[in-house]
Amino acid sequence: MIKLLATGASGFVGQALQRHLLAGKGGGVELCGVDDAYDLLDAAAMHALIARHRPDSVLHLAAQSHVPTAMQDPAGTLQVNVVGTANLLKALTDSGFVGRLLYVSSADVYGAVAEAALPVTEDTPPAPRNPYAASKVAAEVLCLQWQRSHGLDVVIARPFNHTGPGQRDDFALSGFARGIAAIALGLQPPQLRTGNLQVTRDFLDVQDVLDAYLTLLQKGHSGQIYNVCSGVECGLHEALQTLMDLAGVQVDVQVDASRLRPGEQLRMCGSHQKIRADTGWQPQRPLRETLQQLLQHWTQELTP
Amino acid sequence: MIKLLATGASGFVGQALQRHLLAGKGGGVELCGVDDAYDLLDAAAMHALIARHRPDSVLHLAAQSHVPTAMQDPAGTLQVNVVGTANLLKALTDSGFVGRLLYVSSADVYGAVAEAALPVTEDTPPAPRNPYAASKVAAEVLCLQWQRSHGLDVVIARPFNHTGPGQRDDFALSGFARGIAAIALGLQPPQLRTGNLQVTRDFLDVQDVLDAYLTLLQKGHSGQIYNVCSGVECGLHEALQTLMDLAGVQVDVQVDASRLRPGEQLRMCGSHQKIRADTGWQPQRPLRETLQQLLQHWTQELTP
Repeated sequence: MIKLLATGASGFVGQALQRHLLAGKGGGVELCGVDDAYDLLDAAAMHALIARHRPDSVLHLAAQSHVPTAMQDPAGTLQVNVVGTANLLKALTDSGFVGRLLYVSSADVYGAVAEAALPVTEDTPPAPRNPYAASKVAAEVLCLQWQRSHGLDVVIARPFNHTGPGQRDDFALSGFARGIAAIALGLQPPQLRTGNLQVTRDFLDVQDVLDAYLTLLQKGHSGQIYNVCSGVECGLHEALQTLMDLAGVQVDVQVDASRLRPGEQLRMCGSHQKIRADTGWQPQRPLRETLQQLLQHWTQELTP
Repeated sequence: MIKLLATGASGFVGQALQRHLLAGKGGGVELCGVDDAYDLLDAAAMHALIARHRPDSVLHLAAQSHVPTAMQDPAGTLQVNVVGTANLLKALTDSGFVGRLLYVSSADVYGAVAEAALPVTEDTPPAPRNPYAASKVAAEVLCLQWQRSHGLDVVIARPFNHTGPGQRDDFALSGFARGIAAIALGLQPPQLRTGNLQVTRDFLDVQDVLDAYLTLLQKGHSGQIYNVCSGVECGLHEALQTLMDLAGVQVDVQVDASRLRPGEQLRMCGSHQKIRADTGWQPQRPLRETLQQLLQHWTQELTP
């Protein structure tokens, strides 16, 4: 068995990872340190964590990833996402760790991308538009510096949007599914307030994302950056319509201008050519199935 | 008069800036906040600093810039250089600052450069080899993100090696000059222990660097990155020989392997084509004169 330490194991992706591995989908990977409490900003605690578990591989998921919070508190976000990553890196090299670190960055690093540049490849220069995205670029730079300076085996993932049961409802598709489920249950009138539905995004099922991470830990090329994405450009309007069809409800949709983020990218889609070529990974789960699972999840949650 | 706030005013470059402006070389620039005590990590203090002086322009010099310290304490270096820069940026935009911020990065961001890529242009992708260099890339990314998100007028300088009277003697040329001065004064035997003298670097007089910063504040193109360098590749051996010639001493030179930094770049030289084309700046002071001034400085310092 490969002992994998995942930071941020209690977050949305971390919890999905725990279920994924419990369901036997990890191919010989077992998680360690899931129930440990630690603070990325406590260097001594990070050293102790690594020393206690001596992991074979590390998946660095933990981050302050809420963009509005990052805009209000850039310094706090950089602390957790950059200084915290430095503490993890130092703990790894100080402890003689010789395995692979998969750093989970974000497609947010690309910022505003010209439509002609879609689908975005990893060669597109990062141009972050908020402090969260800037912190992810900074941590990528730091991880790659650690590889140059210390020979640490580092791979970087840039996940695009992903969703699945358990995601908070302030993410678009989870929020839509919650609203539609509540309407189907008769808990609220058939009206939804949404952000800009003209926006397109590249959505993956979180389980495809987990498959990608586990594949990159084994087959990614060291020092490389990989988009983790569907390669499919999906309009939010289309996703919302699919949810309504699946639930069999008609909904009056009102666009709420206050939910439009300043400088928001209108269209977004990634290329997964590199990860497919280097590792063989490709997305397995159609978005319609993911949306169905989101509906089921929220229907269960909301059923009185 | 243009009110310029320079962070790090008590450092080597900051003190040289104060003398430069006192000597009337600033062309209508006056410094503010020179004697203020503040901590870049204290967000409230940074807000108060900006509110107190309401500067027209800001030169962000303050940093933890000692590479060996950065290797021992990466987290502390990222705190000051990245989180500290975030505090400054937020204080500026929160206060309605509409002037220009010149962020002083470093040629260290380039890391190891293939000899075929010399002289290095600004298009060379950063590849930092120590946490100090990584912190400088991260702060560049953050400044440019602030420009995209808030419209802040940002220019970035990447100074190469620079020296002048007042620089600490753990920098190569200042250390050489101190040793040669001590030998010329008969204070030590004619022996010097040095690092690798095969190394080449691109050296500027600190006054040329200050001219470049003041020029970039007025004429640099917003959102651009500029090398600040001589464009001349100078061997350390050659600089040491010039110092011996100027002092009229012969010295037994011993290379101390313990002073070789791991992964050190052998040859380094920058291109100043971009700053010349955009602003007209070019270096004015021959290295021989700078070395003469270093010798005079250390001779005065060491004369009993």
